[in-house]
Amino acid sequence: MGWNKVAIVGVGMIKFGELFEKGFENMMEEAYLAAINNVDKGFDPKEIQAAWLGTSRPNLFGFVTIGGAFVSGNLGLIGIPVTRVENGCPTGSDAFRNACFGVASGVYDVVLAIGVEKMRDKSTSEGLLARAVEGHPIINRGETAAVTFSLVATRHMHEFGTTPEQLAMVSVKNRKNACLDPYAHYQSEIKVEDVLKSPMVAYPLHLFDCCPQTDGAAATLLCRADMAHKFTDKPVYVAGLGFGTDYLYFNEKPHFLGFDASVRAAQQAYKMAGVGPKDIALAEVHDCFTITEIVDYEDLGFCEKGQGGKFIESGASERNGILPVNPSGGLISKGHPLGATGIAQMCELFWHLRGEAGQRQVDVTKGYGLQHNVGGFGIANSVVTILSNRAN
Amino acid sequence: MGWNKVAIVGVGMIKFGELFEKGFENMMEEAYLAAINNVDKGFDPKEIQAAWLGTSRPNLFGFVTIGGAFVSGNLGLIGIPVTRVENGCPTGSDAFRNACFGVASGVYDVVLAIGVEKMRDKSTSEGLLARAVEGHPIINRGETAAVTFSLVATRHMHEFGTTPEQLAMVSVKNRKNACLDPYAHYQSEIKVEDVLKSPMVAYPLHLFDCCPQTDGAAATLLCRADMAHKFTDKPVYVAGLGFGTDYLYFNEKPHFLGFDASVRAAQQAYKMAGVGPKDIALAEVHDCFTITEIVDYEDLGFCEKGQGGKFIESGASERNGILPVNPSGGLISKGHPLGATGIAQMCELFWHLRGEAGQRQVDVTKGYGLQHNVGGFGIANSVVTILSNRAN
Repeated sequence: MGWNKVAIVGVGMIKFGELFEKGFENMMEEAYLAAINNVDKGFDPKEIQAAWLGTSRPNLFGFVTIGGAFVSGNLGLIGIPVTRVENGCPTGSDAFRNACFGVASGVYDVVLAIGVEKMRDKSTSEGLLARAVEGHPIINRGETAAVTFSLVATRHMHEFGTTPEQLAMVSVKNRKNACLDPYAHYQSEIKVEDVLKSPMVAYPLHLFDCCPQTDGAAATLLCRADMAHKFTDKPVYVAGLGFGTDYLYFNEKPHFLGFDASVRAAQQAYKMAGVGPKDIALAEVHDCFTITEIVDYEDLGFCEKGQGGKFIESGASERNGILPVNPSGGLISKGHPLGATGIAQMCELFWHLRGEAGQRQVDVTKGYGLQHNVGGFGIANSVVTILSNRAN
Repeated sequence: MGWNKVAIVGVGMIKFGELFEKGFENMMEEAYLAAINNVDKGFDPKEIQAAWLGTSRPNLFGFVTIGGAFVSGNLGLIGIPVTRVENGCPTGSDAFRNACFGVASGVYDVVLAIGVEKMRDKSTSEGLLARAVEGHPIINRGETAAVTFSLVATRHMHEFGTTPEQLAMVSVKNRKNACLDPYAHYQSEIKVEDVLKSPMVAYPLHLFDCCPQTDGAAATLLCRADMAHKFTDKPVYVAGLGFGTDYLYFNEKPHFLGFDASVRAAQQAYKMAGVGPKDIALAEVHDCFTITEIVDYEDLGFCEKGQGGKFIESGASERNGILPVNPSGGLISKGHPLGATGIAQMCELFWHLRGEAGQRQVDVTKGYGLQHNVGGFGIANSVVTILSNRAN
């Protein structure tokens, strides 16, 4: 079932972290080399006909009005088209989506989708998040990312009885998963009490309810589905793509109980893939804060509205649960370098769907993996991608 | 001849200028409304399934990490996917290109490609161009845009005997054309002497060899070619799309006699369209500086290498010449709001190819129009698009 016009034949990423010793280009190069060097039947970079770069704020490091050209220059791919996509938190996943369109349009056979973001080289006050809305006349009045998401957390607690302990369980689960993920920024376990005792950032979100600020890069090689076996006997297919938007300002939104952008993105992706939540073997979802993963469960149809807290408490989203969520450790453990995050999620799904996720491998009998991002200012953009290890 | 999977069925733009009285959103809204209100058989905005936004530096006005979401919010299109593309000077044309892929992929039937840029609300030292490379460790050492292009001008003069008078003729021609274009920033004629007497910016480029800094917005409505007649009896088809990159740093480039990114983009677009320079009825090309249009003639195959100066001198690119170039007045007269420029060029070709360009209408018997941008830092990105009024 599914769209299946495009296949992923190779992926690569770098270990996420505070990479002060690596430049933007170094990170990009390492992810790219990891991808091309791990294609089962070998890969000649000359096969790449076009590229898409996901990066949100490269101008903090001197890269604006450059667009995609420094991808081709630094990767030895001079001449090929490179589009730079920026789309808030789903920047990487939307670059991937546009790369899929490039292939499915019939114009390109083999393309690269790569995401890179540096979050730590600048001070907090000069960094991407602090300067996200500089210059705007009305937004940016004390609204940090944590404040924005806390609005949803408090309303969800009020309406559905979701507890700080349930929020903390998301962090506990994901940090536990990350101990098996060599690419994660954090690779240590924490307990519910650790989360609840950590400093309050914006009620009810404590420090350990928040993902860290992290540098990262990830890459995927995509091709026409009908030529995928030239590169591997185990291609992973793009079964469905969804993208939803929402009102930009909070005063316009009809409710604070979840993210309508996610709901819309999920509906499109499920429809295109011809599957539903029950068919999903594993999901890599946006957990920039613990509350985000709770409402993701609901917005993506993994459970009924209001049941997100009970879903995490039940163990359903554990690595051995009925629907493992964020076996990689999620953004909570890996960090959230905006341009890289979505593409790193594709890498994780690729490894699981091919049975190559090592100690953190989940049961993929169902055959489908779901990727999800939501965010950007106003939490108004969401991408959902459904991948499959089945051509039909 | 040509790809012809996608058709343009409506276009709109605003008068370019110093639009201090209009916000980013106002400009976007006006261009959008102009497009949807000028579809021959009427247009229901609900038809739009996805959008692509070209904008290069919206963060100067508080719009970063927002991605495309403020398009959907401000235009009453809440819910639809919106991708933001940034690609230096070809930002608008690359947004258009990705919108074409979205349609040709089979995923969307009707989409919007819109470009917006504010260049004048900030002071020169705070503006887009001045801050284009802020933070980069080695670029941005005195290299303004004019300095960068002057390297090509002096080398072209040395190698081929191109003269400052020939450069000035580009400005004279384009300013004359713009007098008939109600959308142009400048609508007054100048003479060769005026250009040569204007202040020197970077030898040999005088003030009137340079395009102004201008605010602008433009929009195109695209659909599957096979449904275009639902909206109009005169669709304009996308016959070919090309995008080329080049080395980012000048010390890496093999020569300073033209832009290899343009050559590569043109080759792709001609091949896809199945036509050559001889088939082009008119061209809207990148003339950020007069030297740019001179080398464009050569890079796009309108004349032999080194003959660009003689080409303008011969009158070949006049509105009644063998290949009219920039009948709109070009960037020299219209200005260059990065996100809007490429899409505004599509608008101009659309009007000419439908015989609706009024007093500035050129002979379109040949049936093809060519759009071109080149630039970004290092002049390393180029888009060429070939449009046609023929379905086959």
